[in-house]
Amino acid sequence: MFPTYDVIVVGAGHAGCEAAIAAANLGAKVLLATMNLNTIAQMSCNPAMGGVGKGQIVREIDAMGGYSGIITDETMVQFRMLNKSKGPAMWSPRAQSDRMAFALNWRQKLEAHPNVDFWQEMITGVIIKDGRAKGVYTSLGLEIPGHSVVLTNGTFLNGTIHIGEKQFGGGRAGERAATGLTAQLEEIGFESGRMKTGTPARLDGRSLDWSKMEEQPGDENPGRFSYTDTPPLTDQMPCHITYTSQEVHDTLREGFDRSPMFNGRIRGLGPRYCPSIEDKIDRFAGRDRHQLFVEPEGRNTCEIYVNGFSSSLPEDVQYKALRKIVGFENAKMFRPGYAIEYDFFPPTQLQATLETRLVPRLYFAGQINGTTGYEEAGCQGMMAGFNAALAVQEREPLVLKRSDAYIGVLIDDLINKGTKEPYRMFTSRAEYRILLRQDDADLRLSPVADALGVQNMEQRMTRVNDKRAGVEAIQRELRNHSVTPDQLNNFLASKGETPLKQGVKLLSVLTRPGVTIEGLATAVPALESFLSRYDAETINLAEVTLKYEGYIEREQAAVDKMNRLEGIRLHNTFDYESLTSLSKEARQKLNELKPRTIGQASRISGVSPADVSVLLVHLGR
Amino acid sequence: MFPTYDVIVVGAGHAGCEAAIAAANLGAKVLLATMNLNTIAQMSCNPAMGGVGKGQIVREIDAMGGYSGIITDETMVQFRMLNKSKGPAMWSPRAQSDRMAFALNWRQKLEAHPNVDFWQEMITGVIIKDGRAKGVYTSLGLEIPGHSVVLTNGTFLNGTIHIGEKQFGGGRAGERAATGLTAQLEEIGFESGRMKTGTPARLDGRSLDWSKMEEQPGDENPGRFSYTDTPPLTDQMPCHITYTSQEVHDTLREGFDRSPMFNGRIRGLGPRYCPSIEDKIDRFAGRDRHQLFVEPEGRNTCEIYVNGFSSSLPEDVQYKALRKIVGFENAKMFRPGYAIEYDFFPPTQLQATLETRLVPRLYFAGQINGTTGYEEAGCQGMMAGFNAALAVQEREPLVLKRSDAYIGVLIDDLINKGTKEPYRMFTSRAEYRILLRQDDADLRLSPVADALGVQNMEQRMTRVNDKRAGVEAIQRELRNHSVTPDQLNNFLASKGETPLKQGVKLLSVLTRPGVTIEGLATAVPALESFLSRYDAETINLAEVTLKYEGYIEREQAAVDKMNRLEGIRLHNTFDYESLTSLSKEARQKLNELKPRTIGQASRISGVSPADVSVLLVHLGR
Ligand SMILES: Cc1cc2nc3c(=O)[nH]c(=O)nc-3n(C[C@H](O)[C@H](O)[C@H](O)COP(=O)(O)OP(=O)(O)OC[C@H]3O[C@@H](n4cnc5c(N)ncnc54)[C@H](O)[C@@H]3O)c2cc1C
Ligand SMILES: Cc1cc2nc3c(=O)[nH]c(=O)nc-3n(C[C@H](O)[C@H](O)[C@H](O)COP(=O)(O)OP(=O)(O)OC[C@H]3O[C@@H](n4cnc5c(N)ncnc54)[C@H](O)[C@@H]3O)c2cc1C
Repeated sequence: MFPTYDVIVVGAGHAGCEAAIAAANLGAKVLLATMNLNTIAQMSCNPAMGGVGKGQIVREIDAMGGYSGIITDETMVQFRMLNKSKGPAMWSPRAQSDRMAFALNWRQKLEAHPNVDFWQEMITGVIIKDGRAKGVYTSLGLEIPGHSVVLTNGTFLNGTIHIGEKQFGGGRAGERAATGLTAQLEEIGFESGRMKTGTPARLDGRSLDWSKMEEQPGDENPGRFSYTDTPPLTDQMPCHITYTSQEVHDTLREGFDRSPMFNGRIRGLGPRYCPSIEDKIDRFAGRDRHQLFVEPEGRNTCEIYVNGFSSSLPEDVQYKALRKIVGFENAKMFRPGYAIEYDFFPPTQLQATLETRLVPRLYFAGQINGTTGYEEAGCQGMMAGFNAALAVQEREPLVLKRSDAYIGVLIDDLINKGTKEPYRMFTSRAEYRILLRQDDADLRLSPVADALGVQNMEQRMTRVNDKRAGVEAIQRELRNHSVTPDQLNNFLASKGETPLKQGVKLLSVLTRPGVTIEGLATAVPALESFLSRYDAETINLAEVTLKYEGYIEREQAAVDKMNRLEGIRLHNTFDYESLTSLSKEARQKLNELKPRTIGQASRISGVSPADVSVLLVHLGR
Repeated sequence: MFPTYDVIVVGAGHAGCEAAIAAANLGAKVLLATMNLNTIAQMSCNPAMGGVGKGQIVREIDAMGGYSGIITDETMVQFRMLNKSKGPAMWSPRAQSDRMAFALNWRQKLEAHPNVDFWQEMITGVIIKDGRAKGVYTSLGLEIPGHSVVLTNGTFLNGTIHIGEKQFGGGRAGERAATGLTAQLEEIGFESGRMKTGTPARLDGRSLDWSKMEEQPGDENPGRFSYTDTPPLTDQMPCHITYTSQEVHDTLREGFDRSPMFNGRIRGLGPRYCPSIEDKIDRFAGRDRHQLFVEPEGRNTCEIYVNGFSSSLPEDVQYKALRKIVGFENAKMFRPGYAIEYDFFPPTQLQATLETRLVPRLYFAGQINGTTGYEEAGCQGMMAGFNAALAVQEREPLVLKRSDAYIGVLIDDLINKGTKEPYRMFTSRAEYRILLRQDDADLRLSPVADALGVQNMEQRMTRVNDKRAGVEAIQRELRNHSVTPDQLNNFLASKGETPLKQGVKLLSVLTRPGVTIEGLATAVPALESFLSRYDAETINLAEVTLKYEGYIEREQAAVDKMNRLEGIRLHNTFDYESLTSLSKEARQKLNELKPRTIGQASRISGVSPADVSVLLVHLGR
């Protein structure tokens, strides 16, 4: 009944959708099998994409031909560049999306890809023949043959929803859990664990008093995620801010004895950085209030998401507490918040390609690997999709390094360190974050995707080349263009900068903190007219690379050094127990995880710099 | 946690949505409680509204302020007036809808109503106090208080999905079944039964060869459902037609021994007039092919609905057979067809208001009453919503007569005759169908709704008054305007009509079969200019009422006579067993159903005209 697909993707969440597109964009014949075709690319939790560390990932996905950025741009209702007051390594785009439009748009784009077929059903097992993944079993007992399988089951594997003392099966509010897969994989020898995450109540926006909250508008000149020419955002919607209070906290505390988190009913660990409100008031007992973002779910709905108020307390307690929040005095709920527990597979069972060590041609991506967040899921999906297609095509795998991309950091962290709690991205996880900025993900990664043969990279590559040439031209101009004190001193005075005493090159002025290229252009008409042929992104990139030249070079040198080590291969068959000068823990971990390179070995928790030296000596370096 | 609502509507299908709006439009405070707020107003089966008998119902709903017509108009992709070649009583509007847009639009309109609140959860029981419905219990164990409850659970009550030899619980593909309610209601003394319905496979439109099928475009001048000024449809999409064949039938027969319908696994009766393809080839063994309509699911999706190919045969058999259909040689499925069995409550347990006889303030509407179809569900929902609100407001109930509306026919049939198989509307069910045309539902019903105090009837009432005045003016003009043979004979010759010999009034020419007002206007410039101030609907109505004057008067006379009987009340407490001159069956049925009037009594199956005479004699008439 089915042809043999190159890649079968199980699940159509953010990981599954990007996986399907990535494989399809490499020419693979893809089947996207999911429990309900009407819930493709649902945002299970908050209707937003990006944020600190995460926005960078979305731009990286876009740079490599993924769709998350384009779809966010096309369906967002608000855009903000976070951390604008900090250095450019910290700038992080974030968009508020229209939940329904986002999902619909994904479905349309997937359907528009000739290489993607669809099947609506629960997948209950992986077909394994000759020790390899060869397709999937469905709940109807069908066998769908494939040369590779990507599992992206999200929060659905044996999902259990908790609200106060009540619990019931489900993969997401109103949707059923997925059964069968965990048991089969455990039988084969996979280790699985339990994690949990939570979501806040949804409110009826018509019942809120907006005048009592602070308005948080979008950026005046909203940016976007995609490096293609998606339409600019007009007509932004505001978010709002309000706060909890001691009274709210006291009310919530009344429900603590009935909380599944505090009474031990939930065993899985939750995301430390996305804590529930009960967690926050428990852990930060001294704080007398917590900030809440009151976010629209879309342009044409009154449904409201209360960011920061995730909870699995009994619904009556949630309700009572919500009504004590300023602006929420008459709030009506659409549904209470809840926590969900689900199975995940510790990602140390994966290779850097996201292929499982145990079963060739079986890939895991997304929440199933113990991560949390749409962006983290999406980028894993893309990488698994690429690698599944490459494997079937018998080509070299694609692995991004920690210095290439946040995606590289994420996967390297997962497979080497594993994770005990839901893993989310932060800029602090990247050691080379001045090299991994949101403004140049295209320069870093589009050529990689293009060289791989990813379809539809033409527009991005033209722009990359134009941008690179533009940056060079602007830099050259700034290095060569001299200015006199007369030309600049008025401008410098207006910025509170000390005046020039003699003529200098523009570059030397730009390196002053308060000076920007845009500012210089207002003072130097010739520069202004020179710049008029370049777009804002190019000018910005030229500025960032000039102003931060020193940092960038320093980090690049560190990367180069690391890469020399990084590149040194370790053999899969080597028995580390024989290297007695290694610490005991290092021997154990190395034997367990079998890193492919010195670099990977160095990042395994328990492997110290001393152990790395031992390895280098042993290898004769 | 909840206020006490006037009306709690359980389920947000077509019945539930119209119920919520109807009650809200009477000023009632409404809670719409449904399992998943993302599936509001899902079209479970074909993406189309209207059709023979059903299109009339949609117009009736619209005439009374319901939303089904408006939403269909705003989201349709194709419109056709069916039966245009027959008399105006048979004209039936039908639209192909964009499934996603339809559901989204309903949700937006519900949210826009200030009287409608929302709650997402499974409702598991009805709170009954002092013998009356006083609210509902939820799966979390919450109690939501209300003065009345409308149940519109559709196909979800203990739903079981069948595909070949496999079966599993579900309320619709990919959605879970609803449990608890049936058991509670049975315990109280309600009788329940099982019915079944089915749906065809969904195909990937990209895999079909459209050039091999017949194209079926929409009407050249597409009409619409609503009497308000919804935007006219532009940019229609075509449907296509193809056929099964002996080969297809033979292939399907290979699966008959594994069919849940033929091997007795499905006990519920299915809709005779919407049979599965296996039913059709079984019942009409002589037919060598069956027509299939290949319908788009929306503007921006490649998903295709195969109208006429509903099946619960094993999925491999469906697939094999589909691929033998012309144009489907390379068809890919999104999912197979399936049958679903669900609980319903025989509607003879209801009063004409749709309130249950057993529990005051508890109403049933839609598929739960043994009907099938969105239109049938929607109109019941509206009537239950009106009556629940009216009861809470301690006002007189609203009951439409068989001569008022198809809605009257439907409810009267249900409560008096009950139904053994899913009930759908046909024009043949109405005895006065020349009075129940789609072109004047507004004149028949808008004044009723307006008198009831339904909100937002202003636009419709202005139009009703204009239309009525316009029709009278046009009729007067045609009755009074004389024409000479010179003026008309060319025109008559062109229509193949015999020429005039002397001057006559325009009316006498109009009564000829081949002559229309529009045609006359082309020949008589004064008429054309007179008509220019009226819209097409008004002119059409003037024409229909003039051309069919005789029929209309005859049916009206019959109605008047019937109404005199209809109006004669029967007492609830009367013991029919004492009337020995009644037939045995009539005594039983009358005692069981306790009709409110002679009219209702006369339509109970088993009550003969002779029995009616006995009743009349007994009542002294
Ligand atoms: C209640 C809740 C709260 C959350 N809170 C946060 C938060 O605060 N912050 C945050 O960053 N992230 C949060 N998340 C996580 C975020 O939603 C996920 O990280 C992200 O959606 C993961 O994407 P995914 O593609 O891995 O899985 P999902 O988006 O969960 O998608 C899984 C897909 O697989 C399908 N599927 C599953 N099993 C099968 C099967 N056997 N056969 C066929 N199809 C199958 C499902 O139908 C679905 O389409 C939350 C999620 C939930 C449910
Ligand atoms: C597989 C299938 C095939 C069909 N085929 C045809 C056909 O060929 N021709 C035809 O005319 N009609 C067909 N129908 C029927 C048509 O879909 C229904 O007649 C129509 O949708 C009924 O509307 P409704 O409002 O009564 O119920 P539904 O549209 O079924 O809506 C029921 C609603 O109630 C909610 N709900 C149910 N129980 C609970 C609960 N306990 N608590 C909270 N919410 C609840 C559900 O989530 C849903 O929103 C088919 C339906 C199905 C499922």
